[in-house]
Amino acid sequence: MSTLVLLRHGESEWNAKGLFTGWVDAGLSAKGEEEARRGGRLLLDAGVRPDVVHTSLLTRAIQTANLALGAADLLWLPVSRSWRLNERHYGALQGKDKAQTRAEFGDEQFMLWRRSYDVPPPVLADDDEFSQSGDPRYALLPSELLPRTECLKDVVERMLPYWYDQIVPDLAAGRSVLVVAHGNSLRALVKHLDGIGDDEIAGLNIPTGIPLQYELDADFRPVTRGGRYLDPAAAEAAIEAVANQGK
Amino acid sequence: MSTLVLLRHGESEWNAKGLFTGWVDAGLSAKGEEEARRGGRLLLDAGVRPDVVHTSLLTRAIQTANLALGAADLLWLPVSRSWRLNERHYGALQGKDKAQTRAEFGDEQFMLWRRSYDVPPPVLADDDEFSQSGDPRYALLPSELLPRTECLKDVVERMLPYWYDQIVPDLAAGRSVLVVAHGNSLRALVKHLDGIGDDEIAGLNIPTGIPLQYELDADFRPVTRGGRYLDPAAAEAAIEAVANQGK
Repeated sequence: MSTLVLLRHGESEWNAKGLFTGWVDAGLSAKGEEEARRGGRLLLDAGVRPDVVHTSLLTRAIQTANLALGAADLLWLPVSRSWRLNERHYGALQGKDKAQTRAEFGDEQFMLWRRSYDVPPPVLADDDEFSQSGDPRYALLPSELLPRTECLKDVVERMLPYWYDQIVPDLAAGRSVLVVAHGNSLRALVKHLDGIGDDEIAGLNIPTGIPLQYELDADFRPVTRGGRYLDPAAAEAAIEAVANQGK
Repeated sequence: MSTLVLLRHGESEWNAKGLFTGWVDAGLSAKGEEEARRGGRLLLDAGVRPDVVHTSLLTRAIQTANLALGAADLLWLPVSRSWRLNERHYGALQGKDKAQTRAEFGDEQFMLWRRSYDVPPPVLADDDEFSQSGDPRYALLPSELLPRTECLKDVVERMLPYWYDQIVPDLAAGRSVLVVAHGNSLRALVKHLDGIGDDEIAGLNIPTGIPLQYELDADFRPVTRGGRYLDPAAAEAAIEAVANQGK
């Protein structure tokens, strides 16, 4: 049996502004920083001590990890980072205002881009100001590997090799693992862990800043489907708030 | 030719209080945090972009790395940590007031403990409140490896395996390397790099928060002895201030 803890980064400057972010490297807002520290205190209070940490390459996830680990007195943990844990690439929507996009393209198209499993937004051009082409942090990705847009299905496909090759070996070695990442890369991982169907995943939301703990069996599958939030009441309220946003 | 950059952490809470720190895990003071950010801005302004980072396991070095990397927009760099880059273990002096210790033991003994190459302070007992025995961050060190006191010679001996086995391979692979560590672990490394004699090393001080850049030859030795501080005037002033402290 092994322990896996998932932590979604807190509010970013761009979340606060209502912009599609994706791979654009927005930092945390002051509220997001406080969410991150709170996540670390929840770990500490629950006596959950990870042995290793995995993050994406995006600043908002790394800041969240650093602030949470600082609050839990665990800054010294070994950490690995990968683009495979990055947020979904939002294609040509990156940098666009969410409300304006909804007004321009209509509710149906908007929700299709946001929540369909296999319909990606239009491709982002390499010379767009919000493209990651040429960003030194992705220097090790050949051009054909660098996303220009992604649907959640694409995220599952590029995330799973990291799960199997980097995280599972940690778990197999008896290490408790903390993954600090994004709404959609964590939804992709939870979809895999809990065996959620392509049609059901749209309804799954993961709240920010609240550690989600899974105990995994010998086959690296959850002992209890859905895991356990370290602050269940706050998680439920946050999930309900998201579900009511569209109403 | 490869690039190595050394960065000593900024002022810690315990530096500010005038206490011997060693392996005690004091965090940065507000001044130390600002020194760290300034170190990151110096990297950015000089166009020095490391490819990988190595830190000790102590919070003040990790905070310095995180703040400097944040200021240089490089939080995403891969990072490795090791106890071998930790500050010198100060033995039974850990947690003691520096001025009181000087008054109690006299100038000669005080300077011997602080600056001799091969005379360690008395051993710290494992049940002392400032011992690291039982600290989970050192869980992978068998008891015989965990220092109870160290002189600078001990630091050189336990640091060099990390240099040869972890840092040199990065340099050999063409990566620019940033090492964020401590006064004495960096003095140990500079002693090795510049071939400073056991009798001369007492005179070497490395200022806090100012990146020290070395270009290394094919044998991983400095092209220019002593390297180059990214803010030479500030470094000179800081070194002079330390030299004048005892006068």
